[in-house]
Amino acid sequence: MNNELLVQYRRELHTHLTDELLPFWTVRTADHVNGGFITHFDQDGHDSGEDEKSLIAQTRSIYTYASAHRAGYGGAENLAELARHGVDYLLTRMWDTEHGGFYWMTNRKGEVLNDQKIVYGQSFAIYCLSEYTLATGDPRGSEYAQKTFDLLQKYASDTRHGGYFEMFHRDWTLKGLGSAGGDRKTLDTHMHLMEAFTSLYECTRQAIHRRKLLEVIDLMVGKIIHPIYSTGVPQFWADWRVAPQIKFNVIWGWDRFTEDGVKREAEDNTSYGHNAEFAWLLLHAIDVLGISHEPYQTHLQNAFSHAVDYGVDWEFGGVFVEGSHGGEVYDREKEFWQQAEVLIGFLDAYRIFGDEKYWQAYANVHRFVMDKMVNHSVGEWWPLMTRQGTPIWTHMSHSWKINYHTVRSMVQSIRRIDKLLTQNKLGLTKDSGQ
Amino acid sequence: MNNELLVQYRRELHTHLTDELLPFWTVRTADHVNGGFITHFDQDGHDSGEDEKSLIAQTRSIYTYASAHRAGYGGAENLAELARHGVDYLLTRMWDTEHGGFYWMTNRKGEVLNDQKIVYGQSFAIYCLSEYTLATGDPRGSEYAQKTFDLLQKYASDTRHGGYFEMFHRDWTLKGLGSAGGDRKTLDTHMHLMEAFTSLYECTRQAIHRRKLLEVIDLMVGKIIHPIYSTGVPQFWADWRVAPQIKFNVIWGWDRFTEDGVKREAEDNTSYGHNAEFAWLLLHAIDVLGISHEPYQTHLQNAFSHAVDYGVDWEFGGVFVEGSHGGEVYDREKEFWQQAEVLIGFLDAYRIFGDEKYWQAYANVHRFVMDKMVNHSVGEWWPLMTRQGTPIWTHMSHSWKINYHTVRSMVQSIRRIDKLLTQNKLGLTKDSGQ
Repeated sequence: MNNELLVQYRRELHTHLTDELLPFWTVRTADHVNGGFITHFDQDGHDSGEDEKSLIAQTRSIYTYASAHRAGYGGAENLAELARHGVDYLLTRMWDTEHGGFYWMTNRKGEVLNDQKIVYGQSFAIYCLSEYTLATGDPRGSEYAQKTFDLLQKYASDTRHGGYFEMFHRDWTLKGLGSAGGDRKTLDTHMHLMEAFTSLYECTRQAIHRRKLLEVIDLMVGKIIHPIYSTGVPQFWADWRVAPQIKFNVIWGWDRFTEDGVKREAEDNTSYGHNAEFAWLLLHAIDVLGISHEPYQTHLQNAFSHAVDYGVDWEFGGVFVEGSHGGEVYDREKEFWQQAEVLIGFLDAYRIFGDEKYWQAYANVHRFVMDKMVNHSVGEWWPLMTRQGTPIWTHMSHSWKINYHTVRSMVQSIRRIDKLLTQNKLGLTKDSGQ
Repeated sequence: MNNELLVQYRRELHTHLTDELLPFWTVRTADHVNGGFITHFDQDGHDSGEDEKSLIAQTRSIYTYASAHRAGYGGAENLAELARHGVDYLLTRMWDTEHGGFYWMTNRKGEVLNDQKIVYGQSFAIYCLSEYTLATGDPRGSEYAQKTFDLLQKYASDTRHGGYFEMFHRDWTLKGLGSAGGDRKTLDTHMHLMEAFTSLYECTRQAIHRRKLLEVIDLMVGKIIHPIYSTGVPQFWADWRVAPQIKFNVIWGWDRFTEDGVKREAEDNTSYGHNAEFAWLLLHAIDVLGISHEPYQTHLQNAFSHAVDYGVDWEFGGVFVEGSHGGEVYDREKEFWQQAEVLIGFLDAYRIFGDEKYWQAYANVHRFVMDKMVNHSVGEWWPLMTRQGTPIWTHMSHSWKINYHTVRSMVQSIRRIDKLLTQNKLGLTKDSGQ
């Protein structure tokens, strides 16, 4: 690694963010008729027409515009105003005034299509609303983030085994077993609660938000990551025994299943992208909490190392989808969000541990993203590619993809490269710049 | 056991309740100057003057008058009005309008002496306020019981290990380690939360109150009682490892320690009274929930048996204070509340398991209570006696003793004797009357 390369990479990220990614969204996402955001676009960036507004897509959009504004991007595009436009819709159309919490899905007009309370979605509401208040000072964000937090403590927390149940009916009664999800706990939701509580605490500085953040961190470290490999275990029973990974009725993402909903290696499966994301989100939480990361050092190193040692494709570039905790790779395709998260994570790992392999891994994924994953002529990323980099799915956005991973990856990677440049300028060794 | 004896015992209980216990209180407890209840009386029933109103004593009094009214006692004494008098004080003087929850202690005028939030005390607030609404229909009880429940879910629940933290500052930040109690969890508090959530659910029939009751029952059975003996383990660390029993700075009861606050057998100690109380409260919760007690049968039988086999003093009558889980008795004195609770418990055990030893145990403790423990000329029970039945402590009431154990024991024992009489009349076998 040398400064010239850092500066070149920074320029590529910055150009992509400001000339391609943000403009892709600012010109087309605001729904001026019904409020909120249009979030379905095909490979050419044309509205693909699906009549839905998902909690995930609305909240992730708010996070994107609020956080980019807070980081100094946007300028005349006024990303704060765009975030406010989203918050208006979220609070007036998606908040359940009777039972509290946010609905899972409306149509474009704002009529409720799915009134369930899914904790994964509530966590993104807390995350985006906290970020929105941090970015704009509008107290509505913090107010509703806190309301949602309180509801999770009352209805979702499991006072028997700790952690949070995740799938509820509209009235916050727990959903049923199996694919209804009422008897399971997941890495995904608890990791995003950690992310959400970090921003909530950053916004409010309330002791209870700090304590519950520390509790969910301890859960992640003590129950949810693998005791030997520090890699994420996707699903658990309520009592934290590992559960075979199944597909839920309400889904939010890109977990890969065969067509009959079965996971090939349902009990020995981990995602390189999740692991790097967990590690950098944990580092960020530690930073916001102002505590030492020394107790977490081994876990952080294990999680980052596993992603580099087994997840990086040194032949075709980028990071694979998932594999076993022990190392065997199961799925060698390339998903957008895993590339986005490892970029941030590998820069953090390099900054903290100083091991050149993390820099090489970053450089590898950086090139794959810039050369293959980004659909430059349109502005967003392909959702899924073959190992070699040919698009498999081609939409630029739909109810789950949206822009949180891509924009955040650019904003956070630039921030980390700036830290590295500062360290180099000051002649600091890598691991002193924690 | 025969019907004549049942009828005789019932008459003794009823006479004590209606001619001695309730009149003791109704003539002297209402504070018509400052509101709430005077709760300090010496062995002659004279106001002993301590300038304090404890959350425990106020809430237990409300429970006593509300529950006795609901059970049909009081008549012209209008126990409902007395309960309302207590609720007025509780809600206007002990509720923290800024942070929520009830203060631990005021003086008689209603000025706050200790503003801490102690979960043991909050549990009695939920218990008495739910019972009050059940008894009177006044919605204030249910309203504040639910507010308190919500606060416990937000601030007290431990989302890392399950269960509830117990000791908080006024603003619901957790107190410190050791005798401050912030790092411990106790049988006592969790058992009383089970009791409180039972009445709350009976009052509201809300799904969330049912679920949290089931969770705390599972905790009691899965973590808090001894895995072999089903006897209560008094104290735990936050992660449910057994902790040596220590004395807390804020105390509420009669746990016996040496003068330097040390417990002789700090890690192998159980209370016969608690165990019988736990078992009958669990049976009552099961009844209110409308679920089968079959899954709990072994634990119930173990807990009741242990109290009979090791706790009953067949020589001098009554039940001992405490001993080892394996059977050795440590403390052979006689405390009031343990007698009160085993009366109810042994009647339940006899009714369900039909084993004559439970009837013999009931008869034994019944005689000890009626012949020794009750200070008949005054109306209340001695707090603590030698093994042989000579008073050691002599006050009739103070901030912790009050009337919840004594009055409840009479009301609930009479109810259980009536069930036995009905069974006998119908020619039912004992265990069909569950």
